[in-house]
Amino acid sequence: MELTPVADLPEIRPGDDIAALVAERVGDDVAPGDVLTIASTIVSKAEGRTADLEDYPVSARAQEIADKIAELTAEEKDPRFAQAVLEESTEVLIDCPFLLTETRFGHICVNAGIDRSNVPGHDLLLLPKRPSESAERIRAGLEERGIEDVAVIVTDTCGRPFRHGQRGVAIGWAGMPASRDWRGETDRDGHELEVTVQSVVDELSAAANLVTGEGAGGTPAVVVSDWDFGDLEGSDELFRSVEDDLVRQALREWEFDG
Amino acid sequence: MELTPVADLPEIRPGDDIAALVAERVGDDVAPGDVLTIASTIVSKAEGRTADLEDYPVSARAQEIADKIAELTAEEKDPRFAQAVLEESTEVLIDCPFLLTETRFGHICVNAGIDRSNVPGHDLLLLPKRPSESAERIRAGLEERGIEDVAVIVTDTCGRPFRHGQRGVAIGWAGMPASRDWRGETDRDGHELEVTVQSVVDELSAAANLVTGEGAGGTPAVVVSDWDFGDLEGSDELFRSVEDDLVRQALREWEFDG
Repeated sequence: MELTPVADLPEIRPGDDIAALVAERVGDDVAPGDVLTIASTIVSKAEGRTADLEDYPVSARAQEIADKIAELTAEEKDPRFAQAVLEESTEVLIDCPFLLTETRFGHICVNAGIDRSNVPGHDLLLLPKRPSESAERIRAGLEERGIEDVAVIVTDTCGRPFRHGQRGVAIGWAGMPASRDWRGETDRDGHELEVTVQSVVDELSAAANLVTGEGAGGTPAVVVSDWDFGDLEGSDELFRSVEDDLVRQALREWEFDG
Repeated sequence: MELTPVADLPEIRPGDDIAALVAERVGDDVAPGDVLTIASTIVSKAEGRTADLEDYPVSARAQEIADKIAELTAEEKDPRFAQAVLEESTEVLIDCPFLLTETRFGHICVNAGIDRSNVPGHDLLLLPKRPSESAERIRAGLEERGIEDVAVIVTDTCGRPFRHGQRGVAIGWAGMPASRDWRGETDRDGHELEVTVQSVVDELSAAANLVTGEGAGGTPAVVVSDWDFGDLEGSDELFRSVEDDLVRQALREWEFDG
């Protein structure tokens, strides 16, 4: 398996065609079956998902959250930022000491993934509205330019419980299933495997994040080649439902008390 | 960045020297600065970390857990298996409907990572006792055979809150830091980055898991080449403490009720 950053992508502006910009740069270096990962930051920029704090008149709930954070922690939270997070979210899992929410497309992350760096000329960069549709559009754009059968993954980086640090995850994908299903497969001795579902889009996103880097020298698109999904069954369920997630159930009953 | 499985490793038995077996097979294909990932299953096998259910006389706590799981779910849990999990753990985060614990070396996973497939001739395969020491020993063994400056990561696969499926994670490492620290780095416009700590050992483990595969055709060792940690600061904190982990705090107060 090989990962190659797409070199020399320009700073992305609203309306830019990411498929075209990538196609010009990868040329013949991408083959059918390859995977293209794209950082959500440039997808958001191309889709004009910038915003400013003054766009968010503060609701009572947003003010309550900002007040609670100010009271229980040393940190000032702009209530307009809390409002932006609420508008991007369907459920608040933690409201203090930070906001952990479920975004409208099912991804659980801090501050609904809203970025305050990486936003020239604006205060905020929101995640793409429907990242799997973004991935599908980029995939279709590549096809129009003769780059066929390339799966596209829109990636984000976020933290997680139990382990320090951030790692790359998928938030949207097209042209491949989200996971590989090993149910029914056996080990060398014929025992059924305990590992059942492997989240390949997340593993590909984590791998890509090793070569993209952050910041000024970052390369937000990566081609994964010489890798094969194989002929196992796939599944497109990536985000857990509440019923299926004991941690979400526990968080619903829990309250931070300083 | 390139990932190459180490081909033709034999079935590993207690006492086998993994460094020697890998060194014989990679020859000159590994260079200073490369990373070698090794699945914990073969490290455990080489270290003789197999066990049988009859090795675990059932304590009152293990019986209580098995009874609770039987009462609140449709599932039978062997109390001897619950005992094995308790003996490998320092804290139980969830005791029902399944056991989520912190292992003695800080990793949080279901059933303390004890595997019931992949164990020829025994009932159970425990995780390595101190995986970072295992990684260090393998690294030293490679050095003795002239393979110098190769970092070693011992990997596991496990599930996680919020997202379906399992992905590769690191449980031990040697010769490199666990994470890259981007604090103080800036984006193209000079804004300070919000992403601060990137868990590179986990991302490398996830990447490797894409090429190892599970089951009979699995290749448990992978060489990562043409990748560079860079000159950022590193950190060796991988496992969160309770104070630093709101989800752990929430789970301490939570009880499954069917």
